This record gives sequence, structure tokens and C-alpha cells, in this order.
Amino acid sequence: MSTKQFWIGFDLGGTKMLTAVYDEALKKTFQIKRKTKPDSHPFSIDRIIDTIEKMLVEWGGKRSSVQGIGIGAPGALNPETGEVVNAPNLGWKNVALRKILEDAFKVPVTVINDVDAGTFGEYSAGAAMNARCVLGVFPGTGIGGSIIYEGTILRGTASSIGEIGHLQIDENGFRCGCGNRGCLETVASRLAIAGQAAIAAYRGQAPALLAATGCDIAKIRSGALAEAIAAGDTIIEEIVRQAARRLGQGIAAAVNLLAPDRIILGGGLVEKMPDLYLSEVSAAMEPGLFPVYRSNGTVAIAQLGADAVTLGAAAHIKQHAEQQHEKEKTSSNPSAS
Amino acid sequence: MSTKQFWIGFDLGGTKMLTAVYDEALKKTFQIKRKTKPDSHPFSIDRIIDTIEKMLVEWGGKRSSVQGIGIGAPGALNPETGEVVNAPNLGWKNVALRKILEDAFKVPVTVINDVDAGTFGEYSAGAAMNARCVLGVFPGTGIGGSIIYEGTILRGTASSIGEIGHLQIDENGFRCGCGNRGCLETVASRLAIAGQAAIAAYRGQAPALLAATGCDIAKIRSGALAEAIAAGDTIIEEIVRQAARRLGQGIAAAVNLLAPDRIILGGGLVEKMPDLYLSEVSAAMEPGLFPVYRSNGTVAIAQLGADAVTLGAAAHIKQHAEQQHEKEKTSSNPSAS
Repeated sequence: MSTKQFWIGFDLGGTKMLTAVYDEALKKTFQIKRKTKPDSHPFSIDRIIDTIEKMLVEWGGKRSSVQGIGIGAPGALNPETGEVVNAPNLGWKNVALRKILEDAFKVPVTVINDVDAGTFGEYSAGAAMNARCVLGVFPGTGIGGSIIYEGTILRGTASSIGEIGHLQIDENGFRCGCGNRGCLETVASRLAIAGQAAIAAYRGQAPALLAATGCDIAKIRSGALAEAIAAGDTIIEEIVRQAARRLGQGIAAAVNLLAPDRIILGGGLVEKMPDLYLSEVSAAMEPGLFPVYRSNGTVAIAQLGADAVTLGAAAHIKQHAEQQHEKEKTSSNPSAS
Repeated sequence: MSTKQFWIGFDLGGTKMLTAVYDEALKKTFQIKRKTKPDSHPFSIDRIIDTIEKMLVEWGGKRSSVQGIGIGAPGALNPETGEVVNAPNLGWKNVALRKILEDAFKVPVTVINDVDAGTFGEYSAGAAMNARCVLGVFPGTGIGGSIIYEGTILRGTASSIGEIGHLQIDENGFRCGCGNRGCLETVASRLAIAGQAAIAAYRGQAPALLAATGCDIAKIRSGALAEAIAAGDTIIEEIVRQAARRLGQGIAAAVNLLAPDRIILGGGLVEKMPDLYLSEVSAAMEPGLFPVYRSNGTVAIAQLGADAVTLGAAAHIKQHAEQQHEKEKTSSNPSAS
């Protein structure tokens, strides 16, 4: 009973997998990183199992001290069943990820959305510690959102929630990847920024960006945008600032509904341009906030970087196991012990 | 231990007070109604105490069988402390309503927002029974909103939440009562409708309404609007339908964030024109919903009418007392019994 307990967190990204062992205080004791390499399509779960096996061997700790595995996965999930409903990046449809990993490792497994995992990581040991209600917003290729309320990741009946990127802000706006028109993603995601930046580069208004990436939006990533701004492409700065302001306006809608006491901004764009995002989002939110909520929502930048998802996934399986244990304790009658 | 237990629900409205006794199955066993009469300003809590006293006497049940009192109150509340922070209708600022009533009746008291109480009533015994996540939307003079998640009324740290009426849909829109511009309330509340209806009446486009109310927006209430539509004022119908569509668009934003499995529409406008609201809101939501959520949000009309707030407030104090009891059970050690 008094042996040390450990928890595995797994970040299943489209390009890389990161997995780590955390102790009871959620301190990282070991980690390994591998390319996801979805050369086989659909991507094989065996590669996840191999990666965890490899880590356990290299870590060298006692296998029996591992109490559970938490997975942060992309795409549409059913958080109740641990099934990956649809993850185009991995070529997965209706994959019973939790079940397969529980069979392989004989410990409890939870599968949660990677955005939820990242936000839960910040809540557990980062920029949102001790917050009662956290809104996590991660502008990237799309815009991920997550809500943690009194320690619980809010979820839908058979899906994740927090689709802040799909708030419709203009019914006549550009077509979104989801099929609707004028979603927040169409003006505030990294893709939307890249589209505008490529146009500016083509027009000759952004010489530094043009030299670095040409007009290829696949190459206009967060780092390239930040470097172009640093090199003096003022129009790129204005494009990113405008996107950050639109993001702030969308966040105001979420604050009016939920009054979170902590708002976490993360993801590639924010990591590369934290000061820009912090100031533009905070300022743009204010005019749209119900007055009572004006001092409630404190915007902060995510602190955990690449560790957020593994830490959050490990914290989640730990919380899950503790809740199961609590349930068993209260439902068991004294004579059964 | 086996005596019957009862719970009091109290609906503190700006014009009337309604209070009722509910049994363990949340069946109403007695109720009385009185005018609020805020002739003394600020309104006196003694009138609430008198009203409950009067009901207890007329009811004739055993006083000791009353386990608690739930209050649904208007204005800005602190749900944790049970304090009414600001209720202009009653002339109240920072009134410790819970404390005063607990001292007067020696039973536990909870004070919740009246919109939360109404939604919790529908969740407990109305149109939202068994829903996992409920969004309650009540268009009236303003637009009230409430969220119930797995049986818990979501709240802010020192406020209620669910200010769906203050989603900013147009930063250049009309000035809202909250001070911001272009809130959903400025186009979809009863006041917004009345403003447009009065203009139509003044122009001679709404003869039935003009005959009934003149151009006085204080008189253009939900019943008058419904009657004008029935009498053939087609422009009034178009005005209300457009407001209902805007409401549906606002609700879509909330669904994208929370993916509720039940959406309850209530309040005066909806009670008088349920079919119009059900069809327009349902249709207007769809184009703005994230595709995965399209089948999740089922819109329904509130069923409990005038009983919703008293029932919800009674159900809330009952839930609160049961949770306290559960906590004491798990925290007490066996030797203390």
C-alpha cells in the first residue's frame, strides 16, 4: 500500500507521440518521444503499445507501480467509452482505443481529447492551478476549446465540447472546414492568418515572409509569422493582431455564458507570440463582456508547453482512478471488508 | 426518521410572490400567492417571512417536517453566500437573505437565481427530466439563461452565469441595458420586439395592436403580441419570428460551447407563442451548429408554467440538504456514531 504509485500520460499527435511517467505529485520522472509515422494507414495501435513498452523498459521502474494510462488523442472521441470516433489524421474510425490498451497493459485507461488534456494539465500543475472554472483556448490550424469546472472536464453525451472555433460570427462569412459559414476559425485560426499573410506576401507587402516561405500557406506556420514580424513585416503583425482581437471577441461569448475565473491561451501561435496574444485578447474581450464578469475572467498564457498533454492525461487517469476508488469505498458495506 | 419530509419553494417575483410546500417526490401539497407590493422601498424581508408563516399555518402540516427552504430570487446573487448583491426591483443591495431566513425558520436555506430555479424545476419534474446537460433560455424583458450539468446548476465564483442575452452579436448594434452594444437582448428580448411592434403600430401597419395598446411599449407585452398576431397583424408575426430566429442563432453559440442534450425555452413570449418559438428557434440554430452537435440539442418548451420556480427552488434545497448529509456521512468516522 505504501509503495510509490506512477501514472503514464500519452500525447498522440498527428506527427509525434510523446509519453511520460508521472509520480503521485505529478512530477515527470521519465519520458520518450517518437515520430507518429502514420506510414501504415490506418495508423496501428501496436505502435502506441510498443512506445509505452519501450518507455517502461528504459524507465526501469516497477511495472506494478504503474496505476493507469491517460491518453490525449486528436479527433472526435467518445469520452465515456474511450472510443476514437473519427480521427482523419490517423485514418481511424470507431477505434476502441481504451479497451485495446486496457487489455494490453491490465491497468485502467482513459482517452480524452488532446485539447482537454492540455487544459487539464494547466489546471493540474500550470497556469490554471486552483481555478474554479477554466476556459482553455488553443488557436492553431483550427481553434481548440476546453472547459474545466470544479475539477471536472466538461463533456458532451458522446463527444467533447468547447467548440469555440465554430461560434458563427458571420452567417455570410467564409466557408469553414466544418461546412458552416463564418465560424470563428475562418478569421482567427492559424490557417486564416496564413491565408491573409500569403496574400500580403504575394502583393509584395511582406518581404521578409515572402523570402522565408513564399506564398505557400502550408509553410506559413507560427514560427514563420513571428519571424516575419520580428524582421519588420508590419502588415503581418497587423494581420495577427486582428485575428487575436477576433479571438478575444469569441472568448467574450464563452465568458458571458460561463464566467470562468481563468482563461488559458495556448498552442503554436500563442507560444510564438505570447505578449501580442495576451494584450490583444484581453483588450478585445472587454467591450463584449457582461459588466459583472469584467473582473472575473483572467487571461493567462499556458505554461507547460510540450508537457501539457502528457501531464493532463496522467492527471486525468489519476483523478479517474481515485474517483473509482472513492465510489467503491462508499458502496461497499463494512462486512465485506 | 420515517416521518414524511417536506420542502418549501419560494418564488420572489417583482410583482408577485408564490410559495409552495413540496413533498419528497416533489409533489406540490399546498401553495399561496401574494402581491410583492414593494410599497416600502427597500422591500422588507419581513413580508417574505410573514408569507411563509401564513402558508405554514394554512397548510396545517407538521412544522418539524419542513426540512428546508429554497428561494428563487431576481437580480445579481452570490449563490455561495445566499446574498442578494443587487436587485433593483426590490431596492436591495447586499442583503443576506439566506442568513436572515435561516435565523427565522431554523432550517437550511438556499438562494438561487430565479432563472436557475425555473430551469432546475424543469430538470427535476418537467420538460428536461433525465437530461445530462440542460440549457434553459427565457426570453422576456431581458433574456435569462441557465445551465444544469449532470444535476448541478453551474455558477460563477460570486455570481450566476448563463448570460446568453448579453452575447454580443453586433458591435455596432443598439445600446443594451447592460451598457454594451449589440447584445442579443437588443434584438431578441420582449422589449426589443415591443420597440419594433410600436413602430409598426405607429406606421399604421399593425391596426389590431394599435387598437389594443397604442404605441406604448410598456403595454406591448407577450399577450398583446400574441393577440395582435391572432387578429391578423402579419407584420407583428414577422417581427416576433425574426426575434425568435436571432434567439436561435444565439443559442447555437451556447450549444457549440456546451453541447447540451436538452434546450428548454420558457418565459412569457414562449408561453404565449410556443409553436412559433419552437419551430423558429430549432430551424435558426441548425446552420450555426458544429455538425457533430446537430442531433444533440433537442429544443423543448417549458412545461411547469408558474410552478417552475417554486418547484426548482424546493428541489434545490432538497438536493443541497442531501449532499450535506452525504458529506457528513463520509467524513464522520465510525467511532463518532
